[in-house]
Amino acid sequence: MIKLNEHYLKLSANYLFSEIAKRVRAFQEAHPEKEIIRLGIGDVTRALPKACIEAFHAAVDEMGEDATFKGYGPDYGYDFLREKIARDDYQSRGADIALDEIFISDGAKSDTANIQEIFAHDIKVAIPDPVYPVYIDTNVMAGRTGDPEDGRYQGIVYLEGTKANGFIPDLPGEPVDLIYLCFPNNPTGAVITREALKRWVDYARENKALIIYDAAYEAFLRDESLPHSIYEIEGATEVAIESRSFSKTAGFTGTRCAYTVVPKACTAFDSKGGRQSLHPLWSRRMSTKFNGVSYPVQRAAEAVYSREGKLQVRALTDAYMANAGLIRQAMNGLGFDCVGGINSPYIWVDCRMDSWEFFELLLTRAGVVTTPGAGFGRCGQGFIRISAFNKRENVEKAMARIQQTLGG
Amino acid sequence: MIKLNEHYLKLSANYLFSEIAKRVRAFQEAHPEKEIIRLGIGDVTRALPKACIEAFHAAVDEMGEDATFKGYGPDYGYDFLREKIARDDYQSRGADIALDEIFISDGAKSDTANIQEIFAHDIKVAIPDPVYPVYIDTNVMAGRTGDPEDGRYQGIVYLEGTKANGFIPDLPGEPVDLIYLCFPNNPTGAVITREALKRWVDYARENKALIIYDAAYEAFLRDESLPHSIYEIEGATEVAIESRSFSKTAGFTGTRCAYTVVPKACTAFDSKGGRQSLHPLWSRRMSTKFNGVSYPVQRAAEAVYSREGKLQVRALTDAYMANAGLIRQAMNGLGFDCVGGINSPYIWVDCRMDSWEFFELLLTRAGVVTTPGAGFGRCGQGFIRISAFNKRENVEKAMARIQQTLGG
Repeated sequence: MIKLNEHYLKLSANYLFSEIAKRVRAFQEAHPEKEIIRLGIGDVTRALPKACIEAFHAAVDEMGEDATFKGYGPDYGYDFLREKIARDDYQSRGADIALDEIFISDGAKSDTANIQEIFAHDIKVAIPDPVYPVYIDTNVMAGRTGDPEDGRYQGIVYLEGTKANGFIPDLPGEPVDLIYLCFPNNPTGAVITREALKRWVDYARENKALIIYDAAYEAFLRDESLPHSIYEIEGATEVAIESRSFSKTAGFTGTRCAYTVVPKACTAFDSKGGRQSLHPLWSRRMSTKFNGVSYPVQRAAEAVYSREGKLQVRALTDAYMANAGLIRQAMNGLGFDCVGGINSPYIWVDCRMDSWEFFELLLTRAGVVTTPGAGFGRCGQGFIRISAFNKRENVEKAMARIQQTLGG
Repeated sequence: MIKLNEHYLKLSANYLFSEIAKRVRAFQEAHPEKEIIRLGIGDVTRALPKACIEAFHAAVDEMGEDATFKGYGPDYGYDFLREKIARDDYQSRGADIALDEIFISDGAKSDTANIQEIFAHDIKVAIPDPVYPVYIDTNVMAGRTGDPEDGRYQGIVYLEGTKANGFIPDLPGEPVDLIYLCFPNNPTGAVITREALKRWVDYARENKALIIYDAAYEAFLRDESLPHSIYEIEGATEVAIESRSFSKTAGFTGTRCAYTVVPKACTAFDSKGGRQSLHPLWSRRMSTKFNGVSYPVQRAAEAVYSREGKLQVRALTDAYMANAGLIRQAMNGLGFDCVGGINSPYIWVDCRMDSWEFFELLLTRAGVVTTPGAGFGRCGQGFIRISAFNKRENVEKAMARIQQTLGG
């Protein structure tokens, strides 16, 4: 008898963003005349950089001629892209990462979802709260948790982000094996200092734990003292796997390209207590379950590292960061405390009331869609996330409307 | 202590195609003057159809302008592509498949690798021998098998393909829950009749089993009496999931687009014996672990269904099928029995000696790379696979060399 994976049935049915979409739709149907501005989902709105578009076209042309056509590419990605990532994203910042430690993929979501497969079933997983839901849900699906209770799964250690700790969780108070961290953070926009990140790396080394470091928003860092990669911290190659994406950096959310770094020095333990490198395991995972990223997409991603590409990407992220500054200033001006929006495209607003109530208030009175913090976990209650990913004029209009609604 | 997934350590270290590459490299280094023709790996060699290239460029242009830019697409694929698949690949052949039962992905490899996740851990899995290694390896990685012994994993039921049964396995002699089938077959090129496929569907319905049907080579079927989809068989929507790909159909091996059909009627059982639809489980898997296929790639795939696209794809597959005919004829002419090459791009040759010996003979004496059947499983011993994916002139030259080597 074919049986299903019952762990899936533990997942809560209401996915945050579908609930938001449902509420927005209901409001629009009741008020078809009202124009809605979406500062909810963190999706980019600006065109791909010109350098990427040119490289993309050139590669499509190659696919159109027998002589230059490309069939199966390397499962781990083309070296032309891996070598630029190694050089510009790591070696240039003093992080000792080699080309063959970089695995190109179709998305940081896929990678941070799939990475748990290479670990044992009975490990203890520590996940921040509030959090991007993929880290939790994939561990639920893999059967590493019990049933949910009050919105939390038994068996997971929640690393609480609060106003008191500035949404940088404290080290766990009990032994954990696998730790998810994300900085600049989604959803809070909080960033981590070199010193604070070192405490996590040291913890992992001392406690034989491993860190999954999600640096998808790295391109929004402006304060040069902040680490772009966990590998800027000494010893991190032994205890950390890092994922990054071209999605938010260069507007690739609809184009799909990302990468994950698994250093050869990074190890886990077998049941005899022996240390084994994780690099061959992730290599095997990728070559067995994946066939590489579309060749023209990899060429488009490579263009991000050209001189023009770098300037264009900087202009792109600068534009979103200007929006972020505007949002933060407006909300501060209305008396709301905020985290984020300085080195990150998300502004995490202490709304001093129930998240969903504040969401409804902004939707129905200002026509602005945000994301209720409670959707990211228990510690998100009382906050909302505002995204800077929109056109300047829409952000200005949204803030003016919010000021009008709440300012009186 | 972070522990690794030890099931990975059961996987055999030598992956077939890397072993072949190693041997070819060694031969080339010893004989740099000899020209090698590769009829080994099943990778396409001809350019993408013109219709696909045009649509690809047009979509890249859209990504270059704010007004037409596309961010995150639907996790399950764009409706413009799903509706054409539903109409042309299913409904037009009398198979009752709706748009929302189709999930667009980056590859049939990914899908046939990932699909086992939605089933329970303790199911009995039946896998053909010889076989595409992904079905086995992904179940090994998930912990559904014991250790390997003489090249077979404990706990898997092997469905043997032999000369006697024409490489169409018999129904299993013991109860099984999940069955992998692939027709036109990789590696044997064998095809299944409607009657034989009906026996499998009936078996699954009677025994509460489920079939994963890999139809990646469907576009090479020329005999109109053969089923293109398992859903042409009555009742199959209740017991079968089907995967297809644009890789071999339209030359997308380096472009990456495929799809999997999970009919809403298709069910598995929960631990209380209740039937549950698998559609919500696969939907949840895709929305949690995947972010959709690159928009320009989906537009290129859509062009396969245009009038010009269909003609161009037919011309492409016809050219490979002409190669297949040439290979089959040459090998038959030399007295070798063959399966495949008529409704499939693979020719499975009974070499009447050890697979690897024959592989070495063809490599060292004719300079032609093939794939030793033994690499696909115990039942592949004594056979080699020759792929029709190459330029006409290379296939002609390869066959002339083989005739010269073996004909005397």
